[in-house]
Amino acid sequence: MLDGEKMTTKQVNVSEECDGKCGSCSTSDSCNDQKKQQYEQEQRLKLKLSKIKHKIAIISGKGGVGKSTVTANLAMAFAMNGHKDAVGVLDADIHGPCIPKMLGLKGQTLIGGPGGMLFPVVGKLGIKVVSMDFLLPNDEAPVIWRGPLKMRAIKQFLSDVTWGDLDYLLVDLPPGTGDEPLSVMQLIPNLDGVVIVTMPSEVSEAVVKKSVTFAKQVGVPVIGVIENMSGFVCPDCGAKVDVFKAGGGKRIAEDMTIPYLGSIPLDPKICNDSDGGLSFIVENRTSPATKAFLEIVKKIDQFLENTDPNHKEIKK
Amino acid sequence: MLDGEKMTTKQVNVSEECDGKCGSCSTSDSCNDQKKQQYEQEQRLKLKLSKIKHKIAIISGKGGVGKSTVTANLAMAFAMNGHKDAVGVLDADIHGPCIPKMLGLKGQTLIGGPGGMLFPVVGKLGIKVVSMDFLLPNDEAPVIWRGPLKMRAIKQFLSDVTWGDLDYLLVDLPPGTGDEPLSVMQLIPNLDGVVIVTMPSEVSEAVVKKSVTFAKQVGVPVIGVIENMSGFVCPDCGAKVDVFKAGGGKRIAEDMTIPYLGSIPLDPKICNDSDGGLSFIVENRTSPATKAFLEIVKKIDQFLENTDPNHKEIKK
Repeated sequence: MLDGEKMTTKQVNVSEECDGKCGSCSTSDSCNDQKKQQYEQEQRLKLKLSKIKHKIAIISGKGGVGKSTVTANLAMAFAMNGHKDAVGVLDADIHGPCIPKMLGLKGQTLIGGPGGMLFPVVGKLGIKVVSMDFLLPNDEAPVIWRGPLKMRAIKQFLSDVTWGDLDYLLVDLPPGTGDEPLSVMQLIPNLDGVVIVTMPSEVSEAVVKKSVTFAKQVGVPVIGVIENMSGFVCPDCGAKVDVFKAGGGKRIAEDMTIPYLGSIPLDPKICNDSDGGLSFIVENRTSPATKAFLEIVKKIDQFLENTDPNHKEIKK
Repeated sequence: MLDGEKMTTKQVNVSEECDGKCGSCSTSDSCNDQKKQQYEQEQRLKLKLSKIKHKIAIISGKGGVGKSTVTANLAMAFAMNGHKDAVGVLDADIHGPCIPKMLGLKGQTLIGGPGGMLFPVVGKLGIKVVSMDFLLPNDEAPVIWRGPLKMRAIKQFLSDVTWGDLDYLLVDLPPGTGDEPLSVMQLIPNLDGVVIVTMPSEVSEAVVKKSVTFAKQVGVPVIGVIENMSGFVCPDCGAKVDVFKAGGGKRIAEDMTIPYLGSIPLDPKICNDSDGGLSFIVENRTSPATKAFLEIVKKIDQFLENTDPNHKEIKK
């Protein structure tokens, strides 16, 4: 359990000339080599991805900027915006999966079907969700995995889950520029782009710039930056207090010439609703934060419409 | 650059009976095999660690709970508390290193010495700091590394840095239970324990429990839990607002029967000072947050005094 890399796979004798392209191989039917399993998984992955119109990854430099909160609310905003039953969320944070709790799906499990198929958990407005959390016995169970096993899990979440026809798949990635983000960029070669979430503090700003460079280096378009936890209004006296400063997101966008999508105010209700598994934007339709989310969704749609479909060649 | 695992090392012919124990090998002097380099690094690592009285890792389940802020201020609190020139901080967050900015050491670089030796950057009160940030050309440069390369970097930060005689080495780990925390636990077999930082929200609470189980599973003592960003006092009207709720840290400690070290109030000055590279607790000696840090340091010292020195056998 401690070291995923020690996991072994059965190896069956296979001709040395095998090029792994089972589609054009005459002995493919009787072959059960590891390469064939890989080939079949690749095919399933391609098929699944081909049915999903837009694939968007949500990333951040630093953790705790509210990336999962933003992802959950963006998914609800897309669904409310005419895409009921056509939004999926892949929680690719293997160590700290939060999406199920935030979407009120805590305690659900992924149901398996024939041939290793997995059915996503379906939440409000028909949002399909897959998360490591659905596979864990309880909250206290850590997933002590190194990179290769995490890559394998994410690949399975993409290739073996019956996502069906979706308008949007949002992939919530853990912070940083390590194994999980790299895996997702390599597994989804035609990713529409990344949405980068930050908070206003300068420390966060410094780290988020790394994410922008990361996206540029792996050749994925940057859809834009969202500044979360931007300013706080005291519910008692109405005074506006910038708990974590404000304006960092806009500054990053200007500095790095990428679009600015908007800012989400710091609102204690967001934390409460996330903890309670209530969708903040469904419960608080007139709040400034809800308006901000709906505006952001519109801007993302504009980006997707304007994007040249030929950009989608990821650099390996 | 994209894939650290592709890095190769020179392989020199070596007898098949080589057991890697160069200390007792008669041909060790003339050997330049990779195993010998590994052996030598292990020896350096042991020597360096033997000069450090207490090694403490700071971990969290979720990111953004202020782990680096807490680490930086704990280091200052230890130094103020009679350990000037005897505190070190290893920033083991390879993708998002924040410690240099928080300790006012932004822009400094690690200086190399003979034989691959590295000198730590020395900050206020003689705190010795090593961070990936000191090796990067600018803030925008991401470190796009998978696990094995990160492990190698952390190993080098421990074995090749001239830490000297220290009373405390604080290791600031990235969130989660993946490559970096595992590497540190394996590289520092006699770690005194881990301090777990959380914030009050339930979502954070759920994830932090994984860290507690992680520590228990790898056989490292849990020194205790710190609740950061606990409650907020409006600077305008004095109203106390629990922006991220309160009490989650204490609840975790009780639920999982581990010590509770204290709570740090949410104070906009902490964010300002962290961004400005000022030490919050040095600049604000009478603030409730400073008092909380100093109390926590005392509790950690009590733990270290009471700990049976024979506990320190990490399970592999």
